[in-house]
Amino acid sequence: MASKKATIHDIAKELNITASTVSRALNNNPRISEATKKAVLGMAKDLNYQPNNLAAALRKGKSQLIGIIVPTINRSFFSSVIRGVEEVANKLNYRVIVSQSNEDVDNEIATLNALLNARVDGVLVSIGKNTDRFEHYKDLMERGIPLVLFDRTTNEVGTSQVVIDDYLGGYLATEHLIKQGCKKIVHFTNLKQVNIYKERYRGYLEALRDNDIPFDESLVYQSDMQLVDGRNCTEQLLASHKKFDAIFSASDYAAVGALQILKENGVKVPEDVALVGFSNEPFTSFTDPSLTTVSQFPIEMGQAAAESFFEILEAKKKKFIPQKTVLQPELIIRDSSLKSGK
Amino acid sequence: MASKKATIHDIAKELNITASTVSRALNNNPRISEATKKAVLGMAKDLNYQPNNLAAALRKGKSQLIGIIVPTINRSFFSSVIRGVEEVANKLNYRVIVSQSNEDVDNEIATLNALLNARVDGVLVSIGKNTDRFEHYKDLMERGIPLVLFDRTTNEVGTSQVVIDDYLGGYLATEHLIKQGCKKIVHFTNLKQVNIYKERYRGYLEALRDNDIPFDESLVYQSDMQLVDGRNCTEQLLASHKKFDAIFSASDYAAVGALQILKENGVKVPEDVALVGFSNEPFTSFTDPSLTTVSQFPIEMGQAAAESFFEILEAKKKKFIPQKTVLQPELIIRDSSLKSGK
Repeated sequence: MASKKATIHDIAKELNITASTVSRALNNNPRISEATKKAVLGMAKDLNYQPNNLAAALRKGKSQLIGIIVPTINRSFFSSVIRGVEEVANKLNYRVIVSQSNEDVDNEIATLNALLNARVDGVLVSIGKNTDRFEHYKDLMERGIPLVLFDRTTNEVGTSQVVIDDYLGGYLATEHLIKQGCKKIVHFTNLKQVNIYKERYRGYLEALRDNDIPFDESLVYQSDMQLVDGRNCTEQLLASHKKFDAIFSASDYAAVGALQILKENGVKVPEDVALVGFSNEPFTSFTDPSLTTVSQFPIEMGQAAAESFFEILEAKKKKFIPQKTVLQPELIIRDSSLKSGK
Repeated sequence: MASKKATIHDIAKELNITASTVSRALNNNPRISEATKKAVLGMAKDLNYQPNNLAAALRKGKSQLIGIIVPTINRSFFSSVIRGVEEVANKLNYRVIVSQSNEDVDNEIATLNALLNARVDGVLVSIGKNTDRFEHYKDLMERGIPLVLFDRTTNEVGTSQVVIDDYLGGYLATEHLIKQGCKKIVHFTNLKQVNIYKERYRGYLEALRDNDIPFDESLVYQSDMQLVDGRNCTEQLLASHKKFDAIFSASDYAAVGALQILKENGVKVPEDVALVGFSNEPFTSFTDPSLTTVSQFPIEMGQAAAESFFEILEAKKKKFIPQKTVLQPELIIRDSSLKSGK
């Protein structure tokens, strides 16, 4: 109809309200009444108003985009975190774009630059296993670009973090095995890498100590914690002829590898060996027996990370005090750890 | 050292070459020799040259960003496709950003706009289950923005597509079950939704016909094809007291649901009922018995989609002829379908 594009001023004129009220209504500002929002959206539709988001973004310096960097998209944990971020962000008319670092620090830096070139308003990051340089994040902080770290975090950057209490997760898993009567509990971990494994290990040690079970260092197996590593460690364990009645693997993947080797060798799970993993990956309910594991509430973690992001955004002009949000994990008890008759 | 930022002109001056050669070398242009590239990269490092990608992008109208829209990131298939795209894109100094539509058409449109606001050079899309409007993609085509559809595609948009031969996948799965001696083969599908299921169903029908096995419509169960749907369909199947000796499920998730119910009811897999899924999700090798399935070569699909994207980009000034790339699927035979003694 109209050869000229409708603007917010046209909408304002038709409704006899100010352009800034129209703008706020279109941006779903909570201070605008639902009735006004409805009227504005209706008129915007009638006038075939097309918001020029790019122009608006350049004007406001806001793209309404949040960038997320994860080590790998191909983990149910991370894709659920992304879902949680979206749930909060979409309600505020923000969109989420994701990029993966593939656990490589150079890639992580390139990915961060790509997101900045995409003019995201801020970045949510779970850092790579091998990331030992943090200048790119410190630089971000200096430029006043909101940054939130989640799950795999560091204290070196001085920004808000969202983590689960991995120590508690390790403690709950180990304590559960002890309550099932297990005394020789093997632990699969990777202490050279990210903090999360160290915390789970600390939980394991504390639960042993609190229950007067002597710690046997030879029962701790370190690896990259993938499925194949779980297989290899369990093969070594069986070949060593050490006595053990449980395995607490700090990764579900390594736990499934352990399950495969135990079954192949006629070791009954949970009767001979009780087994607990960590992360509540979806496949843990498909295994036979189903795998006891620790839920990290990834959707809630994503929601909390998004909330931290918006807090930083709001506080931009004021003093910003970094926050650390610690979520409580939950032990999901399934068949792999329930010894019969106990 | 230098208070002024080094530019490509400074590098050019030091090496006594043209600025455009420096630019090409930095962009890894194949027409520049490796020796020149090495010299340029060395001098760039010495002068602490920081490429201003954003400025470069605005100048060239290129962001070196590819946007991908998937229905959901939380599927191994899609995250592997993304990996394949990255493999090709990163070599050409392109970065990949991803957004999910969550199977909702309004969300899909908002996601597309977000990627365009992020100034991607083009978009690779696997369309949502319920997407029945394609104007947003047609609009993209009219604006000359490269678009490639993969896996879940449509012929309505007239651009390049990368798919696997779902018909062949369905045929191979069904033929395999027939060769194992199965004659009453149940099929789990969803014919109301995306084309891929219709094609797998067509493969099922053709394999039955080619092997003179009468088609029994009452053995076809339709659902949303999630794990819970596989459970429900199998419960209905068992309650119906129909005779069947195999299930070909067009989704791995529904196949795992079937496996759970069969086992809970004392039906032996594969002895009593042989079972085949579709997609080769990682968990299919963790189940007990491990699940026979069809690999869709997602990494290769991502590579092919990226290659199609760069072909469109190159051809932008010339006439562009949409291509359809059809990849061949492969049957992965595991324990769930191998009847003993056959």
